[in-house]
Amino acid sequence: MIALLGSQLIGSRTSREGEDVLHGVDPATGKVLQPAFNVATHDEVDRAVKKAEDVAAQFSRMSGVIRARFLRRIADEIEALGADLIERAVAETSLPEVRITGERGRTCAQLRMFADEVEEGSWVDARIDLAQPDRSPLPKPDIRRMLVGLGPVGVFGASNFPLAFSVGGGDTASALAAGCPVVCKSHPSHPGTSELVGRAIIKAAVGEGMPDGVFSLVQGGVEVGEWLVQHRGIKAVGFTGSLRGGRALYDMASRRAEPIPVFAEMGSVNPVFVLPGALAGHVDAVATGYATSLMMGVGQFCTNPGILVGIAGDDFDQMVGSIADHVRGADPGVMLNRGICDNYSMLITERGRHDAVKIEGMGNGSSSGLASGVVFSTSAAEFLVDQSLQAEVFGPAALIVRCLNQEEMLAVVGVLEGQLTGTILMGEGDDDLGRQIHGRLVNRVGRVIFNGYPTGVEVCDAMQHGGPYPATSDSRFTSVGRSALLRWARPVAWQGAPQGILPEELRDGNPRGIWRRVDSVMGRE
Amino acid sequence: MIALLGSQLIGSRTSREGEDVLHGVDPATGKVLQPAFNVATHDEVDRAVKKAEDVAAQFSRMSGVIRARFLRRIADEIEALGADLIERAVAETSLPEVRITGERGRTCAQLRMFADEVEEGSWVDARIDLAQPDRSPLPKPDIRRMLVGLGPVGVFGASNFPLAFSVGGGDTASALAAGCPVVCKSHPSHPGTSELVGRAIIKAAVGEGMPDGVFSLVQGGVEVGEWLVQHRGIKAVGFTGSLRGGRALYDMASRRAEPIPVFAEMGSVNPVFVLPGALAGHVDAVATGYATSLMMGVGQFCTNPGILVGIAGDDFDQMVGSIADHVRGADPGVMLNRGICDNYSMLITERGRHDAVKIEGMGNGSSSGLASGVVFSTSAAEFLVDQSLQAEVFGPAALIVRCLNQEEMLAVVGVLEGQLTGTILMGEGDDDLGRQIHGRLVNRVGRVIFNGYPTGVEVCDAMQHGGPYPATSDSRFTSVGRSALLRWARPVAWQGAPQGILPEELRDGNPRGIWRRVDSVMGRE
Repeated sequence: MIALLGSQLIGSRTSREGEDVLHGVDPATGKVLQPAFNVATHDEVDRAVKKAEDVAAQFSRMSGVIRARFLRRIADEIEALGADLIERAVAETSLPEVRITGERGRTCAQLRMFADEVEEGSWVDARIDLAQPDRSPLPKPDIRRMLVGLGPVGVFGASNFPLAFSVGGGDTASALAAGCPVVCKSHPSHPGTSELVGRAIIKAAVGEGMPDGVFSLVQGGVEVGEWLVQHRGIKAVGFTGSLRGGRALYDMASRRAEPIPVFAEMGSVNPVFVLPGALAGHVDAVATGYATSLMMGVGQFCTNPGILVGIAGDDFDQMVGSIADHVRGADPGVMLNRGICDNYSMLITERGRHDAVKIEGMGNGSSSGLASGVVFSTSAAEFLVDQSLQAEVFGPAALIVRCLNQEEMLAVVGVLEGQLTGTILMGEGDDDLGRQIHGRLVNRVGRVIFNGYPTGVEVCDAMQHGGPYPATSDSRFTSVGRSALLRWARPVAWQGAPQGILPEELRDGNPRGIWRRVDSVMGRE
Repeated sequence: MIALLGSQLIGSRTSREGEDVLHGVDPATGKVLQPAFNVATHDEVDRAVKKAEDVAAQFSRMSGVIRARFLRRIADEIEALGADLIERAVAETSLPEVRITGERGRTCAQLRMFADEVEEGSWVDARIDLAQPDRSPLPKPDIRRMLVGLGPVGVFGASNFPLAFSVGGGDTASALAAGCPVVCKSHPSHPGTSELVGRAIIKAAVGEGMPDGVFSLVQGGVEVGEWLVQHRGIKAVGFTGSLRGGRALYDMASRRAEPIPVFAEMGSVNPVFVLPGALAGHVDAVATGYATSLMMGVGQFCTNPGILVGIAGDDFDQMVGSIADHVRGADPGVMLNRGICDNYSMLITERGRHDAVKIEGMGNGSSSGLASGVVFSTSAAEFLVDQSLQAEVFGPAALIVRCLNQEEMLAVVGVLEGQLTGTILMGEGDDDLGRQIHGRLVNRVGRVIFNGYPTGVEVCDAMQHGGPYPATSDSRFTSVGRSALLRWARPVAWQGAPQGILPEELRDGNPRGIWRRVDSVMGRE
């Protein structure tokens, strides 16, 4: 087993200046895990950011080919951690080994995907307007424009994906890909996993000759996060977590003397609309499909389908009964940490007491650290007037909304807050209603799913993992998929610049062979 | 002469509910112009936004081909206003007729450029990942993604470009192009010009069968602007103006229950670095070039070159003397309104009293409404320690920064705040210094200009009119050029969607013939 250091990783140096410590905790047993991790001091955060600032320009100017090599090396180094990483992550999160192994695969595939993207190079959206010295009344200058990295990015590790959305996850991978140094604050519920991945990244940086400071890892809680967001050297922030946490970071960043963009992926209840044709003859399949998506990972996915909307009738009642049976029959699961589990217990107790909410089914007893699924139901009439019923319950809790007719179902779409996803299950005879629901739903979500379920976010070019507030703090970007790196880049134009000063991507003859727009015409000559 | 109504334009209806009025004022004479314009009430703003909300989905779904027709029709209708528009704009701004005529050309060219962009259609950044039903361990779903309009946009007319950055200017044109309805608040210093252009837009909307509410115009000041930004139906804001005004709107938008993006183009001093080789044998040309850019439009351009940095020596002294001569010899000019002129007077008086600032030259007497140019100088040593010397003085005021050597010049770049532009004038022997200055400058600006001047912002594909704060509130976007419409759009992904539900841009066979990435490979088959 690799010995854990319990220190900050400030570029290639370790540092343990503070007196406060934190520990990983086994969420299943409540047992404190060793070693203790030093909480970063203000000075340590400051040094990490300053190191990042010092190398930002150099790193941003490096060729995408070189950054691609760095990203691939990170994936290799994470894989090289072998069983030690898997064991520690299982111990700190109680997620099953098979899930952690899968997540490691996703994390490394993601790093290699961004490597491919920046090696290919067209992501910089190069645009060239050639000079027209003879244009009348005024000559047109030569102007060339492309995206460059914003500068140091502050990344917050997320609790629910200790690898794929944490230290070496999508935010770090996409920021490094875009040419931005990263200072990451680990999530305090998996400090050991964070340190192992952080060391792999730094090993890769040293191995590939990256400038020292291109990546740092600090351990800590809310206060350390605040120092990071408020540091004038940080130029953007990536976060995945609760609405409360994300909004607090967004507010802090907006109030800085120099406000900075925050991409916070926050709350979402991911409504599923079951149309009558989808149920006809398929009640069991729908109930099983929905319940499986709901219970997956103890309901701790951003795309967990927390709301199911259907039209009252025999099929509907049968579906509700079958979903309730599934949930009742499922074993309780260990949640990611005690805080999340206590919060879940509190929220389902509260919801169960709501006058307009009925409990359709509930798993067997949640003991400490363990959570069971629960199926609530309410009427569309109530849902339409009480916005609190839309609040996310992070965990395996469903709220089934019973509509009396199609009009009520359409009205339900109309009151929805912003969501990461919206799902339409439709079958024969549903074309017209499906089209109408889609027309309203598409304005409220980042991704519309037909006859599938929202969990299982594909990491690919066309993925949109984002959506109108409160799903995220900026619906114009995604945190999953190739275009996630656009969050960390800004356009720069060069006017009349000598060839030797221009980045390769903008030079005559297109030496990088990328897709560019020359006088507004796409090509790669 | 077209009779002005003095009312709000709420979609195709006019409305005059309020009791407060405002007037245009001739900035040269201080004479109040007729008629009175009703200031919008809260209810009128509310109705305008609600109309925009009602049609947002329909407008966003319309083909780019149809929106292109609408944009071109707006340009035609603005041109059809003929001399009435020119006369009114000259009366309200005191800008010369030739400038207003030129600006009308720029405004209409801009509308037609966005028409071309959305008619061609590739701007939506379509990405398609085809299904792989046999992929193991899990099948890959079909996912398709493109950009769609954000929803209603609030646009603030700017005072300094009564056509090109006002009611029918770049923000409105790009938002309509992206499929977003616009509610525009006119700038109170040119209400008549605003009404004429607003009516042209509405005439175009009616003529092209656009849904009623796709454009509204409200008249008023700060309070009306606040209602607009705080209305929950507004999904983004475009603004060009002062740092104070832009920051106030940004803060307001960030504090909403649902925060929205604000693109505010604010202050910039657009530093110019004169390297020794550029001066050698060309002192007069540099002095004339700089002074012309400085004095252009009475210094009221966002890209006005307010700071000139050079290295002390005979050539430098001669250049300063020559710039001072130019400025002393120039006639005073009428500023856009009395408020701007009073502010300019106050700021130059203040700067002239600064201990470390010397007055090198000053035009003949600024009387009320009229402004003269002024050339201040200071040392790099002072500039490096006193950030107040970087503050924008909106008008024809230059601050010349005298460096003792190259190291000081590099240090000056290092303390600069975010800028729209930075300019490097270089000649023989300047390669090394030019490269070093560029290396630092590029991190602080949106556009780097070599051997030219920042004024005269080309409207083209490669233009970047934006930059790090405080130049704008979001350096990731531009307010000029084809990609300005990206400010108003967000990606949506469709997973497993039937062909009939997908937007044309994402259907099999690529019926729109646009550039798309299919399985990450660019093409337009």
